[in-house]
Amino acid sequence: MAARKLLIDVHTHVYLPRYASVLRSRPTAPRILSRPTPNGSGTEERLVILENEPSGGRPVGPQYWDRDEKLSFMDKHGIDISIVSTANPWLDFLSPAEAPSIAESLNADLESYCSTAPSFSSLSRLYGFGLLPLLPSVPASVLLRIIDQIASLPHLKGVIMGTRGLGKGLDDEALEPVWEALAREGLVVFLHPHYGIPSSEWGERENGHVLPLALGFPFETTIATTRLILSGVLDRHPALRLLLAHSGGALPQLSSRLASCIDHDPLVAARLRHDARWYLGRLWFDAVAYGREELAFVAECVGRADSYDKSHQRALGAARLLFGTDHPFFPPLQDTETWHSVTENLEAIAGVEGWSEEERENVRGGNAARLFGLV
Amino acid sequence: MAARKLLIDVHTHVYLPRYASVLRSRPTAPRILSRPTPNGSGTEERLVILENEPSGGRPVGPQYWDRDEKLSFMDKHGIDISIVSTANPWLDFLSPAEAPSIAESLNADLESYCSTAPSFSSLSRLYGFGLLPLLPSVPASVLLRIIDQIASLPHLKGVIMGTRGLGKGLDDEALEPVWEALAREGLVVFLHPHYGIPSSEWGERENGHVLPLALGFPFETTIATTRLILSGVLDRHPALRLLLAHSGGALPQLSSRLASCIDHDPLVAARLRHDARWYLGRLWFDAVAYGREELAFVAECVGRADSYDKSHQRALGAARLLFGTDHPFFPPLQDTETWHSVTENLEAIAGVEGWSEEERENVRGGNAARLFGLV
Repeated sequence: MAARKLLIDVHTHVYLPRYASVLRSRPTAPRILSRPTPNGSGTEERLVILENEPSGGRPVGPQYWDRDEKLSFMDKHGIDISIVSTANPWLDFLSPAEAPSIAESLNADLESYCSTAPSFSSLSRLYGFGLLPLLPSVPASVLLRIIDQIASLPHLKGVIMGTRGLGKGLDDEALEPVWEALAREGLVVFLHPHYGIPSSEWGERENGHVLPLALGFPFETTIATTRLILSGVLDRHPALRLLLAHSGGALPQLSSRLASCIDHDPLVAARLRHDARWYLGRLWFDAVAYGREELAFVAECVGRADSYDKSHQRALGAARLLFGTDHPFFPPLQDTETWHSVTENLEAIAGVEGWSEEERENVRGGNAARLFGLV
Repeated sequence: MAARKLLIDVHTHVYLPRYASVLRSRPTAPRILSRPTPNGSGTEERLVILENEPSGGRPVGPQYWDRDEKLSFMDKHGIDISIVSTANPWLDFLSPAEAPSIAESLNADLESYCSTAPSFSSLSRLYGFGLLPLLPSVPASVLLRIIDQIASLPHLKGVIMGTRGLGKGLDDEALEPVWEALAREGLVVFLHPHYGIPSSEWGERENGHVLPLALGFPFETTIATTRLILSGVLDRHPALRLLLAHSGGALPQLSSRLASCIDHDPLVAARLRHDARWYLGRLWFDAVAYGREELAFVAECVGRADSYDKSHQRALGAARLLFGTDHPFFPPLQDTETWHSVTENLEAIAGVEGWSEEERENVRGGNAARLFGLV
């Protein structure tokens, strides 16, 4: 019962010190560079995730790697437990030769980061998503070995994953043994964007990070998830647990259009076991959408999913949504007490019409506690 | 009052005979080509909108150009009035030298198509959206002349427009006089996708048209509308009436994320007069989303828009949604009596929870009657 009252953050990132060192050693993006502060009094570090970022990247500091900063952020916002994940772009920029051993070291680091953190009752305040070296030509045997490693580390509850897979996306048949192993081990896959869509789409006007972050990120997640559905991965691996960043991007709003387009494309329709909308009931969604109508709508799309199946089993939409913050991204512009990007997601959960207080508690923490086996 | 009972289709396409002739004369896409039928008994025409389309394009026939077929489709589905628009890709493939005169001829053709159609009471059964020759290097004076032409043709109520503008998108400053003239003339801009996003995003698997149609189209509309908002067009032209295809794509679901990203990007935030969500209340959306939860959600996003403004004027979400069919696209796979792509949108309108019967009638036709001045 205690678990129902927990506030659990499922979307919160870290660059472990080992990872930050790798970024500091690089001459090209992704990298961390040092430059003089604007007033010339010292140096500051900037994080450049993609080449040619506006304003030379974003400020980066201990909030990205210092565990005390994470715990302090959690205390400030009443967050009991965080399921921490390496921020994008993960290991995507490494060579296939070096990535596996760095993945193993970072997974061990993250286990240590979590296991030596403060705890309460029988729970730690920190759990984590591990990393897989998903790069072209990395053999399945290596990926399976590292899945075994993650499954053996008691504080790691899943893996965070981008959308490129082994270079051909997540609908690549070569990933079949990976899905099979992740499902078997009960590891949650946190699917997270990094690349957006080609920047040619954003035009010539200066709009800062707005378009790639507000639209490109959720588009990428929507495409990757749709391609997974169309490839039959969710049909073949019903036990696979997939958590979508940013409330699934645009997938819920486009899901009936997707179903209609599939209906009118007989080759694709014949390949799938279910209506496209049914699969949304098999997914999990973080509640990082910044608005209560958005959350209510995602919950409705999950809630209606089983009406697109003959068996009519019942799914409650709110049971698939999980609180998250995206910390340390979206910091406040002023050094205010709490982060607006956090409070507006908490207010959204509090404000969804038609949810009971129990359902709100579940979105805040109960669902995560069950998903990650913390009860 | 009679207008409230009308069923009006705002999203329905035509290739006028003159336009089809242009497509038949072309050696590359977009084109209409003839090929032997699969059983060798004759020839069939295929429409190839983009190069390298799966299955060599789609069947095309009199449903695209024959007015009797449009009227027969309307009768079959109880549609009283259609606001007909040229289907994509409009004039985008023409040279800037030839496009203006072809636009004027097609606008005159469409006026004739509508004005000689059956009528009832004082209304025609057909109205139209005109075409502008939006191509690089076409001077504003030519565009303004053709806007004047369209405004002078009594059955043309607006223009249909893609997202490329004069080659740099709709946030191009060179379009300022166009927005100004369209707003002044009270012409509705029907914003419609064609290009989607780069096909590199769809991966290597064969998924037919599903990904570009189900995701690429709405992404394109979302990007174009967001860029319009960010460029201040809606701030500078409050009288501009913009109707978004496919219920605005993903814009409603991403609008709170968009607002949050703008909030955290001070340069962009300072440029806009309103929260991003406010602008959704200034837009119109066709009801071509294929699901009732989607429609209800769009209406909620419109309904909440004014809460993001200091003046707190009231907008009813359902007043901005308009029935549409996307005819002649999405035909049934079998030659059934009615088109599933039509009935599921009608069922969606009938099924939205919380709408009164009057609101449903308005989405079916009353809103369009008012928007297009048919009452």
